[in-house]
Amino acid sequence: MNSPIPQPGSPLPHTQQGIRRRNLSLVLHTVAAQGPLSRATVASRIGLTRAAVSTLVDELVRADLLVELGPEQRSGTVGRPGSALALSERCPVGIGAEIGVDHLAACAVDLHGTVRARAVLEGDNRGRPPEPVLKELARLIREVTDTARAAGLRPAGLGVAVPGLVARDARTVVRAPNLGWTQVDLGRHLGDTLPPRVDNEANLGALAELWLGGERVAADAPATDGEPATGGAPATGGGAAPRDFLHVSAEIGIGAAVVVDGRLLRGARGFAGELGHVPVRPEGPDCPCGGRGCLEQYAGAEAVLRAAGLPPGEGRIGLLTALAEDGDERVRRALRGAGSALGIAVSGAVNLLDPQTVVLGGALSRLAPWLLPSMERELLRRTADPERPGGASVTVSRIGSDGPLLGAAHAVVQAVLDDPVSVAPPPG
Amino acid sequence: MNSPIPQPGSPLPHTQQGIRRRNLSLVLHTVAAQGPLSRATVASRIGLTRAAVSTLVDELVRADLLVELGPEQRSGTVGRPGSALALSERCPVGIGAEIGVDHLAACAVDLHGTVRARAVLEGDNRGRPPEPVLKELARLIREVTDTARAAGLRPAGLGVAVPGLVARDARTVVRAPNLGWTQVDLGRHLGDTLPPRVDNEANLGALAELWLGGERVAADAPATDGEPATGGAPATGGGAAPRDFLHVSAEIGIGAAVVVDGRLLRGARGFAGELGHVPVRPEGPDCPCGGRGCLEQYAGAEAVLRAAGLPPGEGRIGLLTALAEDGDERVRRALRGAGSALGIAVSGAVNLLDPQTVVLGGALSRLAPWLLPSMERELLRRTADPERPGGASVTVSRIGSDGPLLGAAHAVVQAVLDDPVSVAPPPG
Repeated sequence: MNSPIPQPGSPLPHTQQGIRRRNLSLVLHTVAAQGPLSRATVASRIGLTRAAVSTLVDELVRADLLVELGPEQRSGTVGRPGSALALSERCPVGIGAEIGVDHLAACAVDLHGTVRARAVLEGDNRGRPPEPVLKELARLIREVTDTARAAGLRPAGLGVAVPGLVARDARTVVRAPNLGWTQVDLGRHLGDTLPPRVDNEANLGALAELWLGGERVAADAPATDGEPATGGAPATGGGAAPRDFLHVSAEIGIGAAVVVDGRLLRGARGFAGELGHVPVRPEGPDCPCGGRGCLEQYAGAEAVLRAAGLPPGEGRIGLLTALAEDGDERVRRALRGAGSALGIAVSGAVNLLDPQTVVLGGALSRLAPWLLPSMERELLRRTADPERPGGASVTVSRIGSDGPLLGAAHAVVQAVLDDPVSVAPPPG
Repeated sequence: MNSPIPQPGSPLPHTQQGIRRRNLSLVLHTVAAQGPLSRATVASRIGLTRAAVSTLVDELVRADLLVELGPEQRSGTVGRPGSALALSERCPVGIGAEIGVDHLAACAVDLHGTVRARAVLEGDNRGRPPEPVLKELARLIREVTDTARAAGLRPAGLGVAVPGLVARDARTVVRAPNLGWTQVDLGRHLGDTLPPRVDNEANLGALAELWLGGERVAADAPATDGEPATGGAPATGGGAAPRDFLHVSAEIGIGAAVVVDGRLLRGARGFAGELGHVPVRPEGPDCPCGGRGCLEQYAGAEAVLRAAGLPPGEGRIGLLTALAEDGDERVRRALRGAGSALGIAVSGAVNLLDPQTVVLGGALSRLAPWLLPSMERELLRRTADPERPGGASVTVSRIGSDGPLLGAAHAVVQAVLDDPVSVAPPPG
């Protein structure tokens, strides 16, 4: 029998070493999310003994990830107050960067999820060769990294969001059609910053939704802000983010990401999420992908501009938003048509995947007021079933176009929280 | 920040007790799949010390799950030969049962994956009330259970496959339209056998593909066969089954199951896999689900019979297969049309999910010769991309209509392999 030896996605520790790493992660996650907390409180939250937690905390304190603030102030508790644990003021930060079609950006996010530094450069990157674009991006990355270091923080890694297909090496942009790039090795071009970990913008936008979607988005701290993250109230808080959802986003093309049980479904070859090429009308217009009647032929930016009688060009989504806000009836009609096509394609995905919710993210969140009514009409008609109540609703992302940049930084933050001992110890 | 404390699908052990269970499972999985093996070989395969493995083996021997056969016979090995470990002759078996529209079946499958007993009752169950059907099924279950017990095996649980929607309690059939059942509690009706664990037939068919798909299907042993499973060569063997695939099956309706990284994607409410209601032509014929132009309106059994000019009725898939084999051109044309519709709907799923492969299972595997050419043509056109080579191919299940029954029994077998200490010890 071909009984596979269990190989779940996340490696299962079966050694003392593996368990120690897992438990260090549980402690750090708990303090980052809910701290400051006493050792006893941490122990009760994660179901380990206080003695076991103390050993783990000592290691995290030695690695300068946690600090002890002194006695925990809580009224109504019995017994000796424990010393409250908090994230170290010199805690690691994730550096995120984004290559957008019309902007470049970088940011630094600490283990609380607070943005500690941010830099943006507007400008049309379509058709520009990689070298000057990546030179500008490297400058932004150095800017936020320097700001973070000046505040005593430790940059722990660099995530980069790109509008294209990324190779399995997480360095090479295989193809970014709207930039006009093919086979660009970002590891080589950004090599004098931190080694980049590159991912598709739609994937990172969905991960941002997973990690931040249940909350208010962290307000940006000014780049000069040296206040330690652990000193004040956490910048974010709120309800639970969904863990099973379809994230639909668009800049020029239409992308999607499927998150199942809190994990991004990447596909066997890493090409999952091509919602833009789901057939809407099988005998519809030819699509450059080789198919016919793909969703992008009805709801992509080019198709919507064409339906609205507008010429193709830059700043497309901004223009559509402005005209729709002004009440332009041709634009609104074009967006209603796009919403219907989105509803048809998303209905298929909902019937197949049964997600908790469908999140409209990226630029689509700005167009939601005009897309949603027709999209929801199709969804209701094609997925509602009295015997299967509680079908997927559509929600609009509160993160919006910031998703890919925040997702890139948070990917680094999550890697630190998931494996704290992987972070280099502080200098000195 | 809403950093979730890690909660992957499979619970992560962070206690000694959890690790012990995990490691007992690793040892039992390894011996079931590759045994007989020495303790030293098991230790090297799973990356634990020989001492640790010995402790685990002792526990599995005490629970009568493993036995020691005496010195391992292997030429060319250095040092003292180890004692070979094998599954106990009194090992647990999984009991599977299936409620089909035109048959009832039960079987017993041991930890090697060998079918040790089997019983089938042909007959049309459409419109029959649950009581007499479940009475007949209980008789078949008792028959295979008695046969297994007579061979010294220990029935460890009962899985039941049904052609309908199952509630979260894994006991209640919410709705089985082709049987005409709603809200039937199988736990109550089958209560004097083993407590049943009920699941949808398409889900169990996909799990059978996952567990058995890379191999020859186990040849049935006669019901009177008392030969111990551990005594002879394993009945199955072969290549690796895919771990990321879309399984498409049909009896009357069309179902699908998405398997990602070896796990069945069930959906937030347990309703994933409704490929039959993915829109193929959004302005197509009305579907009883409330939508229009759903896949079932083009590729469901009723639609194919209508397109072939045949009246609806029983034995539909058998009739279509027979006529297509005879060269009936109307039937073949109807099947080509169904294949195209399948190709359009599956293209959308492939673009969204990027599976390794698409498996045609259940009754569709019998119709594959006439469905495949047009289905593959649509898939190639709508999913092939020179920049994303190696798109999903379509494979035909070798398990075919046996999938749900074998999947039901194997679900019990997998539960034993995954948590050996959960099994009751042998009597005496």
